[in-house]
Amino acid sequence: MDQDEDSSGSGYVDEGREYTRDSNYIPDRITADGSGGWPVEAGRYRLVVARACPWANRAVIVRRLLGLEEAISMGMCGPTHDERSWTFDLDPGGRDPVLGYERLQEAFLARFPDYDRGITVPAIVDVPTGEVVTNDFAQMTLDLSTEWTAHHRDGAPDLYPEHLRDEMDDVMQRVYTEVNNGVYRCGFAGSQQAYDAAYDRLWTALDWLSERLAGRRFLLGDTITEADVRLFTTLARFDAVYHGHFKCNRQKLSELPVLWGYARDLFQTPGFGDTIDFPQIKEHYYVVHADLNPTQIVPVGPDTANWLTPHGREELGGSPFGDGTPPGPVAEGERVPGDSGPGGIGHR
Amino acid sequence: MDQDEDSSGSGYVDEGREYTRDSNYIPDRITADGSGGWPVEAGRYRLVVARACPWANRAVIVRRLLGLEEAISMGMCGPTHDERSWTFDLDPGGRDPVLGYERLQEAFLARFPDYDRGITVPAIVDVPTGEVVTNDFAQMTLDLSTEWTAHHRDGAPDLYPEHLRDEMDDVMQRVYTEVNNGVYRCGFAGSQQAYDAAYDRLWTALDWLSERLAGRRFLLGDTITEADVRLFTTLARFDAVYHGHFKCNRQKLSELPVLWGYARDLFQTPGFGDTIDFPQIKEHYYVVHADLNPTQIVPVGPDTANWLTPHGREELGGSPFGDGTPPGPVAEGERVPGDSGPGGIGHR
Repeated sequence: MDQDEDSSGSGYVDEGREYTRDSNYIPDRITADGSGGWPVEAGRYRLVVARACPWANRAVIVRRLLGLEEAISMGMCGPTHDERSWTFDLDPGGRDPVLGYERLQEAFLARFPDYDRGITVPAIVDVPTGEVVTNDFAQMTLDLSTEWTAHHRDGAPDLYPEHLRDEMDDVMQRVYTEVNNGVYRCGFAGSQQAYDAAYDRLWTALDWLSERLAGRRFLLGDTITEADVRLFTTLARFDAVYHGHFKCNRQKLSELPVLWGYARDLFQTPGFGDTIDFPQIKEHYYVVHADLNPTQIVPVGPDTANWLTPHGREELGGSPFGDGTPPGPVAEGERVPGDSGPGGIGHR
Repeated sequence: MDQDEDSSGSGYVDEGREYTRDSNYIPDRITADGSGGWPVEAGRYRLVVARACPWANRAVIVRRLLGLEEAISMGMCGPTHDERSWTFDLDPGGRDPVLGYERLQEAFLARFPDYDRGITVPAIVDVPTGEVVTNDFAQMTLDLSTEWTAHHRDGAPDLYPEHLRDEMDDVMQRVYTEVNNGVYRCGFAGSQQAYDAAYDRLWTALDWLSERLAGRRFLLGDTITEADVRLFTTLARFDAVYHGHFKCNRQKLSELPVLWGYARDLFQTPGFGDTIDFPQIKEHYYVVHADLNPTQIVPVGPDTANWLTPHGREELGGSPFGDGTPPGPVAEGERVPGDSGPGGIGHR
């Protein structure tokens, strides 16, 4: 995501106003029966992400947990971008090696020549035509779980189990409005009053989550689900970015015993921490939001070695993959740069 | 201090450059023998401070530790100011009740009509003429200890003991350049390179202090000295401001076991924590440095209740006042607003 965070065209903060996320996405879906025109087909689509972006991070994690690396290739944008949004500046020659594009925008314009909404990640691109299929991040990961089952690896977890969906949808909705989007509501508040209200909403939700997770290992019980993926991508960025840059600073995540244990449990689970690139995350927020951080200086801290400390959550029972198995090593070419452990810890 | 932080005239950050503090102060001294024209005299001078300012905070603490409240009155500027610097906006009618001034600048202009350097706190003003005597913060507190002895309270500590001065001067010099000023060097860095270097210098010094204080209760041994006062005023602002606003974020102070114990030990000692106003401190930095924080939104956090938790430093032996005694209750009219404990905790 991100381009759509820019509601004013010239900055991220709309003076005097509460922050409101533009939530118009291309709603197309890739389905097993192909009823919408986009059939599931191994090798046909490319998932375009940026390591920095929490919304894209969901898709990176889910793809890896389900073992869809062979079926859906992945293109990676760099951590920063200009007003025309995400670029493939990390690739040799500054072009995505499969799509040949310099900018993700090209895939949107290939399909909609007059496209004038946000150019956001994650996006799925149809490789043969070079046209974007969808950037609807919320539906996208659920479809990876439910429509791409024929291509899941052996032992893949069921991240959206039928019998839990009602409860999951409620939990994910509250996590989305109050936490995933709640940190942005604090950071992009256009007045002290809007910020104060946003801060209260965020911490009310984090206290609720601490209570919910005090007695159960994961959000829906004994094994991981998509709900955990969605909460994790915000928690992983909390101390590195949201605490200072977005002023979500009642405590650091590392000062909240339950949530900190929970977040480390996930971080140390294959498929979670190994997708996190702290240097890219920090660079993205501190450089791109120049209206919040005019110097664009990126903090050296926090020390992230604490993510690898024992979390003690095994005592609650359960196990991340239940009857399934964890994913294997990260695919060649998809490792976090400079990685010497999950999260690029040791990278910088 | 503060006005002199503004080296460019239009902001605090000088793009592309390392931050350098202007250290030109009015060097006059008030002495017991009156040799410099300003004799020690009870009731003649007014100390002008702002609760927010760490340099002024030193003088507030030393005056109280020594029991000089009757001998030297105190005027208090509000936490924020414009380009013409500190104002008495907290006083009824916006005027200091003794000097009659709206702006501290008036005392500087009364003495030097063409004064064009920083209008800084702490400043000492000669009440009969309304002229500023000195704003040399470093000499000022030492003189309160050594020149005003005739007016010290019974049981006042010797904050600058003769036999320790060589070692104290070395420690205070390193604390000044690396920590007191070191946090500003991080926050006002004009380039990533200048910031990275400043961050390393700061944390090298904080690691040195952690080591020094691991085995001794205070910086110079078993009792408090001026060196502790000088370190304390920076530590008290660390988590509230420097950690986020100045990007001094390897850890929070509260994550550094030795320094956090040391800081709380002082905070809970009469004369230290009871001079700290966290809301004013946060308002000052986040509002005045609009080039670092263009929204001027003041964070609600951090939760400061942790300053009152047990610090365990008594185990190291020693006691803050040695053979002396702690100061009594804060003078009427000098309590931190809304105070329900040291540091205005519970105020907001």
